[in-house]
Amino acid sequence: MIRERHLFGPGPSNPYPEATRALAEPLLGHLDPEFLRVMDETCDMLRTVWGTENSRTLPLSATGSAGMEAAFVNTVHPGDVVVVAVNGLFGQRMTDVAARCGAEVVAVEHEWGQPVDVERVLAAHDSPAIIAAVHAETSTGVRSDIAALGAGKGDALLVTDAVTSIAGIELRADDWGVDIGYAGTQKCLGVAPGLAPFTINDRAFERRVEKPQSWYLDLGMLGGYVGEAASKGGQRTYHHTAPTAMVASLHAGLTRILDEGLEAVWTRHQAAGDELQAGLEAMGLELFAAEGSRLPELTTVKVPEGVDSAAVRRELLERHGIEIGAGAGAYASTVWRIGLMGRNARPDAVLLVLAALQDVLGTSRG
Amino acid sequence: MIRERHLFGPGPSNPYPEATRALAEPLLGHLDPEFLRVMDETCDMLRTVWGTENSRTLPLSATGSAGMEAAFVNTVHPGDVVVVAVNGLFGQRMTDVAARCGAEVVAVEHEWGQPVDVERVLAAHDSPAIIAAVHAETSTGVRSDIAALGAGKGDALLVTDAVTSIAGIELRADDWGVDIGYAGTQKCLGVAPGLAPFTINDRAFERRVEKPQSWYLDLGMLGGYVGEAASKGGQRTYHHTAPTAMVASLHAGLTRILDEGLEAVWTRHQAAGDELQAGLEAMGLELFAAEGSRLPELTTVKVPEGVDSAAVRRELLERHGIEIGAGAGAYASTVWRIGLMGRNARPDAVLLVLAALQDVLGTSRG
Repeated sequence: MIRERHLFGPGPSNPYPEATRALAEPLLGHLDPEFLRVMDETCDMLRTVWGTENSRTLPLSATGSAGMEAAFVNTVHPGDVVVVAVNGLFGQRMTDVAARCGAEVVAVEHEWGQPVDVERVLAAHDSPAIIAAVHAETSTGVRSDIAALGAGKGDALLVTDAVTSIAGIELRADDWGVDIGYAGTQKCLGVAPGLAPFTINDRAFERRVEKPQSWYLDLGMLGGYVGEAASKGGQRTYHHTAPTAMVASLHAGLTRILDEGLEAVWTRHQAAGDELQAGLEAMGLELFAAEGSRLPELTTVKVPEGVDSAAVRRELLERHGIEIGAGAGAYASTVWRIGLMGRNARPDAVLLVLAALQDVLGTSRG
Repeated sequence: MIRERHLFGPGPSNPYPEATRALAEPLLGHLDPEFLRVMDETCDMLRTVWGTENSRTLPLSATGSAGMEAAFVNTVHPGDVVVVAVNGLFGQRMTDVAARCGAEVVAVEHEWGQPVDVERVLAAHDSPAIIAAVHAETSTGVRSDIAALGAGKGDALLVTDAVTSIAGIELRADDWGVDIGYAGTQKCLGVAPGLAPFTINDRAFERRVEKPQSWYLDLGMLGGYVGEAASKGGQRTYHHTAPTAMVASLHAGLTRILDEGLEAVWTRHQAAGDELQAGLEAMGLELFAAEGSRLPELTTVKVPEGVDSAAVRRELLERHGIEIGAGAGAYASTVWRIGLMGRNARPDAVLLVLAALQDVLGTSRG
């Protein structure tokens, strides 16, 4: 039996139908001229959703967390100071990943649910090699001001996690001074999980580690297959077998998004998030993320006193085929995460998840 | 326009139809109980195709080359001696990957096209921490004797690349003394590229690096989501978002293979390879791989004197939709690689590729 789910958690979301269909199209080899065209167009469209002109913009052949690893493993030289803004699980993860790459990590801790305190992060060290922050914290549903970090970064490189922001909310890597960015396909891009859209500018590439610890994520080597050399018509160098079905699917998802219009897609996410958050408050529920910093695509809401968080999620899944997320870390049983991302950022999804929550909570307040 | 290809190169191969269909089924979340069942069954079926009872057998969320990286990054302690049998491109790659992990690499070089010289490899160092070899060299079409390496490995760990052998030819990880193995999905498993089936036994796991350079491929952390802890009914720990569509597809491909019967699948690959190789020789072409060590699933053949290798491949692709591979490394223009893997290991594919080659070479010899 095939189970159908409404994927209203923190990701994956239900893919755009175009992205699903592309997965099942006839497979191409990774060196087929037709596939290379698909790959080049995918990189072009990724540049648009990143808001960048970086020639080195590509989908890494692994999930978003590998994008985080690629960011640090290619740029952290032993002993480099890396200032990390930690306002949730993914900021925490950055400290672990950067430390494994040999960084001297300066973690700037925040209360979860709060946005990054830009002044505190910028004041944390005199001359960091890297400043790193999460644009949209998937663990808390909070948006932070990347542009302000970019404006104040000085000589540091700015690493930005855009896993849950890309193609959902405004993202302008070049304008904001983002030097290195990574994302995932399974959130607002509306594609299955499996690829990490990645971008790095010349400034960061020039400071890169010559021979990083990771062969698989070595951007110097990957550049022979995609990116600048390749797009200039040079010979492609085989590095590893690209996941061709997934890239074709990302191509289809991006085409769909750009056909609709990137700003229209942002507006659609904002509208769905606004309606959902208003509806939850109207039900008497309390939102978790700090007001003014709430992501539209991922809403965090406190589990009401006396309610069994896991039982509600199980009921939603079994009775209505709806997946929502538990909270992360210390908030596992006290917060829910409701994502309306990509295809799901639309009014009928808002109505459905509100109605289903009311049904399961038994709190219909017509 | 959708291009259909006969993928008769060194991989990817055309996926089994079941595997393609599974990609397009409704997506599940990575923590959905239904998906966790799919993941557990996938790990069970992987144990069968690996020929292992290792609890730590799982699909890593990246392509086969990341499997290679996982093998070394989790087991190489700084300064460890790693003896690598190099009889092709993927043996070479192992030396690079292991060195980045801090190994003192002892490369045992072979002429390409020859199988691994077991005695020479075993004699290369008194007490290596690791001995590594490729079971089926994708660059040359050669099979090596992993069982003999396992029998002579002594206290060393044996790392085996099974990217092009798994589910194509006999592979018995436990019987042969393989401690760590990695593979890919896009060859004889008949699934799109994107996952790296991986297995590690207790002996190797106990010697692992406590905190490897790679967070993404850290087997200690991955074990909280899949593998032993998980399959014993313990709580799943979120590590990264599993590529759920790809795992569902691997599940479908494995189901198809085990329904047919693993040994029957090996026999089918052997028959197709035998027919192809006989047919190529009957056309007057010369095989590249050493006789007695030829892989049935991947045949290497010398480009006849005076023939433009790339032009033939282009003609095959444009006129007949057939992809075959160029040679690797120094043999790029003097060898072709013809793979009949997974779904393509069948008589009609043999007939087609032979007929097409005759057509394009203009050497019909009725």
